[in-house]
Amino acid sequence: MVRTLAAMTVLALASVLPTAAQDLPSWNDGAAKKSIVDFVTAVTTQGGSDFVEPADRIAVFDNDGTLWSEQPMYVQLAFVLDRVKALAPEHPEWKDTEPFKSVLAGDMKGVAAAGMKGLVEIVAATHSGMTSDEFSRIATDWIASAKHPTTGKPYTSMIYQPMRELVSYLKDNGFKVFIVSGGGIEFMRPWTERVYSIPAENVVGSSIKTKYEMRDGKPAVVRLPEIDFIDDEAGKPVGIAKFIGKRPIAAFGNSDGDFQMLEWTTAGDGRRFGLIVHHDDGEREVAYDRDSHFGKLAKGLDEGPKRGWTIVSMKNDWKQVFPE
Amino acid sequence: MVRTLAAMTVLALASVLPTAAQDLPSWNDGAAKKSIVDFVTAVTTQGGSDFVEPADRIAVFDNDGTLWSEQPMYVQLAFVLDRVKALAPEHPEWKDTEPFKSVLAGDMKGVAAAGMKGLVEIVAATHSGMTSDEFSRIATDWIASAKHPTTGKPYTSMIYQPMRELVSYLKDNGFKVFIVSGGGIEFMRPWTERVYSIPAENVVGSSIKTKYEMRDGKPAVVRLPEIDFIDDEAGKPVGIAKFIGKRPIAAFGNSDGDFQMLEWTTAGDGRRFGLIVHHDDGEREVAYDRDSHFGKLAKGLDEGPKRGWTIVSMKNDWKQVFPE
Ligand SMILES: [Ca+2]
Ligand SMILES: [Ca+2]
Repeated sequence: MVRTLAAMTVLALASVLPTAAQDLPSWNDGAAKKSIVDFVTAVTTQGGSDFVEPADRIAVFDNDGTLWSEQPMYVQLAFVLDRVKALAPEHPEWKDTEPFKSVLAGDMKGVAAAGMKGLVEIVAATHSGMTSDEFSRIATDWIASAKHPTTGKPYTSMIYQPMRELVSYLKDNGFKVFIVSGGGIEFMRPWTERVYSIPAENVVGSSIKTKYEMRDGKPAVVRLPEIDFIDDEAGKPVGIAKFIGKRPIAAFGNSDGDFQMLEWTTAGDGRRFGLIVHHDDGEREVAYDRDSHFGKLAKGLDEGPKRGWTIVSMKNDWKQVFPE
Repeated sequence: MVRTLAAMTVLALASVLPTAAQDLPSWNDGAAKKSIVDFVTAVTTQGGSDFVEPADRIAVFDNDGTLWSEQPMYVQLAFVLDRVKALAPEHPEWKDTEPFKSVLAGDMKGVAAAGMKGLVEIVAATHSGMTSDEFSRIATDWIASAKHPTTGKPYTSMIYQPMRELVSYLKDNGFKVFIVSGGGIEFMRPWTERVYSIPAENVVGSSIKTKYEMRDGKPAVVRLPEIDFIDDEAGKPVGIAKFIGKRPIAAFGNSDGDFQMLEWTTAGDGRRFGLIVHHDDGEREVAYDRDSHFGKLAKGLDEGPKRGWTIVSMKNDWKQVFPE
């Protein structure tokens, strides 16, 4: 009862607080920030025509290029390459076998030439065979020590401060915030709570199949060398329907891999919100869109504005890009 | 800041409250209730050797026979049979085609004779072709009007009051509570928040495949006539690893379909908890275990006590079975 009263006090206080623009200190005043605050105000104003119950305030964020840097390559690709090098002593045959030979030689063109088939082979060789618990420890250890190739900072420092503030702002306004990424679900889960305040169970991503079995006399979930689900493009709405079970009211992305997620989200009834982060800041980050290998953005730039999506200019809308 | 202060007040109040045995009013005092309270006290006592951070306080509940009645048949089976009858006018051929013929004739032995293949056919015919949103409305409408065949009550009144109190007790103690059921994930999600206070996104279950496509010019997630995942037996740890991404510290079930989930949960490091609801109350509910078609319990009864799992006697441990 005491707890209930205290909880009611929190709710009462929360509802009289201003729709805190001060919660987004790294955003410049402008159309992008205004569109965010207007949307959140509309769906949280009790009695308003756009009010949405907290249970249905679902917001989904892409990860690579939306919450953290994806240049010069996806972070998980760096992880995969490091894993090949770490495991190479146990696989002397890799020195003469593609695509491993190219990885070990640092020949990224050779890796790219192996195509999707080669990538699946590399992922199978480096991401399976161990238990889920073991893989979680491998990912945790790697992310704690690996450094971004150009800045030398830990990858978890290469996150976008304005987006982290946006996640907090939404959570403070009763939203349930999920990551919906093409990246590996078990690669992200070990660190998303610490880095973004998004708990492991709120992460949707690509996955490989697993199997329950006894290993050394102990029950374990073991990772198999077989793709289960690719959470990208049309896979994102499918992943959301499966893992979350509700259509989001707000979606945040940066590439055409997010197009269907934004399309499905913003086509729902009632007030909706779609946002694309446009990497147009070559000074503070990297300027790329239509011709990029990672995070190609073309359809979203052409169609997004017609659909009422907010296009964020990193150069103009963000006071600061990375955390201090 | 005001919000932060208020939240801290709640936390402070929560930590000085007694490990509220008054939160489980429908449980008789006894070994089962004591084992629950002892476990929760141990993992929530800051500084204690068994303390678990809230982020890792994951508890998983089976649904059929654990949170609500599964006799005389699984509720979803009643739903499926009703769907066949509702759709029959559009399928005149069903009158002469098994297993639909048996369903329409009310011949449950004929339905059973069609086996798993027949059941998959029925599910494909009744659970696919529509969008996820449409299926959600169908399930919502059905659960609002359907009645239990022997009591005449809505199915959502045939839930176990002591288990509902247990869910609340765990949530009040910082646990994240999930349903992990062999039942259909999209059949459960529309009503679990209202009935159990477990939100849609915390439901793990069996699923069929879906596809993102344009339908009548609108983007939709469409249900396909193909099984995606069976969340039962060894599938339960796999489903937990996929959907939640952490090994639970507490698991609650009632049949041998929950065995692997309890086994995996309780084999983890640190303090763990496993509980089996034993349906031994033929007066207030239905007495069944080793020979039941639905919710067969044999291995759990034999092995559970040796593994330290709590076996709940509905007859002796529960003051009350259903809500008033
Ligand atoms: Ca991206
Ligand atoms: Ca059950």
